[in-house]
Amino acid sequence: MSKITLSQGAGGEKMQELIRNFVLKELEHDYGEVPLSALDDAAIVDGIAFTTDTYTVKPLFFPGGNIGSLAVAGTVNDVSVMGAYPVALSCGMIIEEGFPESDLRTILASANLTARKADVKIVTGDTKVVEKGAADGLFVNTSGIGKRSPHLDGNIDRIRTSRRYPWNWPNDSGLSDGDVLIVSGPIGNHGVALLSAREGYGFETTIRTDAAPLNGLIESALKIGGITAMKDPTRGGLANLLNEWSEKSNIGLTVKEEDLPIDSGVLSACEMLGIDPLEIGNEGKVVFAVVPEASKDVLDAVKASPEGRHAMIIGEASSDIDGVVLETYTGGKRIVESPIGDPVPRIC
Amino acid sequence: MSKITLSQGAGGEKMQELIRNFVLKELEHDYGEVPLSALDDAAIVDGIAFTTDTYTVKPLFFPGGNIGSLAVAGTVNDVSVMGAYPVALSCGMIIEEGFPESDLRTILASANLTARKADVKIVTGDTKVVEKGAADGLFVNTSGIGKRSPHLDGNIDRIRTSRRYPWNWPNDSGLSDGDVLIVSGPIGNHGVALLSAREGYGFETTIRTDAAPLNGLIESALKIGGITAMKDPTRGGLANLLNEWSEKSNIGLTVKEEDLPIDSGVLSACEMLGIDPLEIGNEGKVVFAVVPEASKDVLDAVKASPEGRHAMIIGEASSDIDGVVLETYTGGKRIVESPIGDPVPRIC
Repeated sequence: MSKITLSQGAGGEKMQELIRNFVLKELEHDYGEVPLSALDDAAIVDGIAFTTDTYTVKPLFFPGGNIGSLAVAGTVNDVSVMGAYPVALSCGMIIEEGFPESDLRTILASANLTARKADVKIVTGDTKVVEKGAADGLFVNTSGIGKRSPHLDGNIDRIRTSRRYPWNWPNDSGLSDGDVLIVSGPIGNHGVALLSAREGYGFETTIRTDAAPLNGLIESALKIGGITAMKDPTRGGLANLLNEWSEKSNIGLTVKEEDLPIDSGVLSACEMLGIDPLEIGNEGKVVFAVVPEASKDVLDAVKASPEGRHAMIIGEASSDIDGVVLETYTGGKRIVESPIGDPVPRIC
Repeated sequence: MSKITLSQGAGGEKMQELIRNFVLKELEHDYGEVPLSALDDAAIVDGIAFTTDTYTVKPLFFPGGNIGSLAVAGTVNDVSVMGAYPVALSCGMIIEEGFPESDLRTILASANLTARKADVKIVTGDTKVVEKGAADGLFVNTSGIGKRSPHLDGNIDRIRTSRRYPWNWPNDSGLSDGDVLIVSGPIGNHGVALLSAREGYGFETTIRTDAAPLNGLIESALKIGGITAMKDPTRGGLANLLNEWSEKSNIGLTVKEEDLPIDSGVLSACEMLGIDPLEIGNEGKVVFAVVPEASKDVLDAVKASPEGRHAMIIGEASSDIDGVVLETYTGGKRIVESPIGDPVPRIC
């Protein structure tokens, strides 16, 4: 009898397989403006962006955040990268019997504070308590709904060809030749911060999670226009994001290693742990694909946001190549693949 | 250090306390047409009904259903009792490492079949796998969005006073003197079916879960009009539902024991187990409060639905009494209180 394995939940190729072989096989999946089958960050149905995320992050508290702030930020970002502004969030909790009340209070307060930063409210919730040993402390599900950004039509006007936006919303299949790739800041911080707090790792670092709601930053980029796709590099990291875009848009992507923003603390932790910073999940970053003529203005707008100060142009889309290619410091070229599993399980 | 206890997740008074002392204390809760503070079945924000439910039901498979069909039915019903029709559902899963793939497939297929019955689609999802021992097999979160029923304004036209519907949507504070209470069918079946399949109970019964989507039934009742409140008696059962209505609407409720539809198999199981059928959760029932002049027509409409064949008028709202009063077979009167904890934990 075949059984589910940990690597199937890890955001890499194995998870894609699980989703294709089970979720898409058993569920009707072609409904909506951006349907389930798009496997994008959110679905669009009747003009409403709708997304869900379950958080099983371990440990629950880590440098710079906790499961509450993480959940709210992650769901706000999944709505926002579809070109929608968040309207409301839900919060469903599974609590293990014996969980400290004070921790629950802290986590809810963090969720509320993060929601306030994003100018969105948690409007509905559900609480389940299960017996000792039936869950690992606390699991949180946040779902989110959003409505079409008022800047989306202007954004689309700046996109050159009608081939783009198959669904009239920015999505993973929106890229075409020449699009410029912009990342909103350094990558890998969330994963490294998390590992530093995890039992059995426990190395010293000053790295903190980057988890933050990015709806304001994204809105300011949309105001400029010309954005063909947006996505947050969560499970599977930048490597997974770029491969999803490349596959779904059927276009090659090149990224320059020297342009990738990575903090030195993240680099040294990754070296020590033997993991690739491109494969680590982030929770407060977004990658934009932008038509070349708008890329400078979008970069400036992103850099003007507090969360985007260290944004960089990291590469471009090219129909001359297949897949994702990293141009290394030394001038070599390396194929970047989606991780099979994930170097850091239970990152979110 | 205070710790969360099982009874706080059980849908009774202890859970209400947990929600008031933690969720409502830490989260901003006054946003929307029906806000979080209403603690109703769904919130209404910007014209969208939005609800979330986490399912930790044990066991995952039980007579007549499984966690997949249960989750879809429960969330469809929570949207529908607000006077909205379901537009889309999400599905977030936490899977324990080692979970059988074939069970996952069966559960997804059941979820899809139930969604098809309700004419709604699961449009977005999330999958997390946690290590062996970190979760109890499978937990499912379904969130749902809905839009205002086209029949809601006609329904409101049939309600006599402007005092009703403080939020212009049917909700728990909508009842007033003389409203007639209708239950759509026999109560207690889901809880008894579940217990019969649970390790350590294992009694013989032919009772099956009543879990079913009720949006069609509710729509046909709304077409008649005059409905002042609707609610599904899930955790805490009918006892909890009636007490919530009584408190939030500030009105007494009387229910006649002889009019309560309860299957004989449910009655005998409850007697054997020493639990009160009024306190057991249901997943395919709805209770309506209706102005008297519309009650006969609403009852007929409900009885014409396949899920409502055994609907009954069970009582009425009365400003002459406080709380919830059951008139027993013998002509006595008994106060019905919300259960403190819950006779059947992990029922949904």
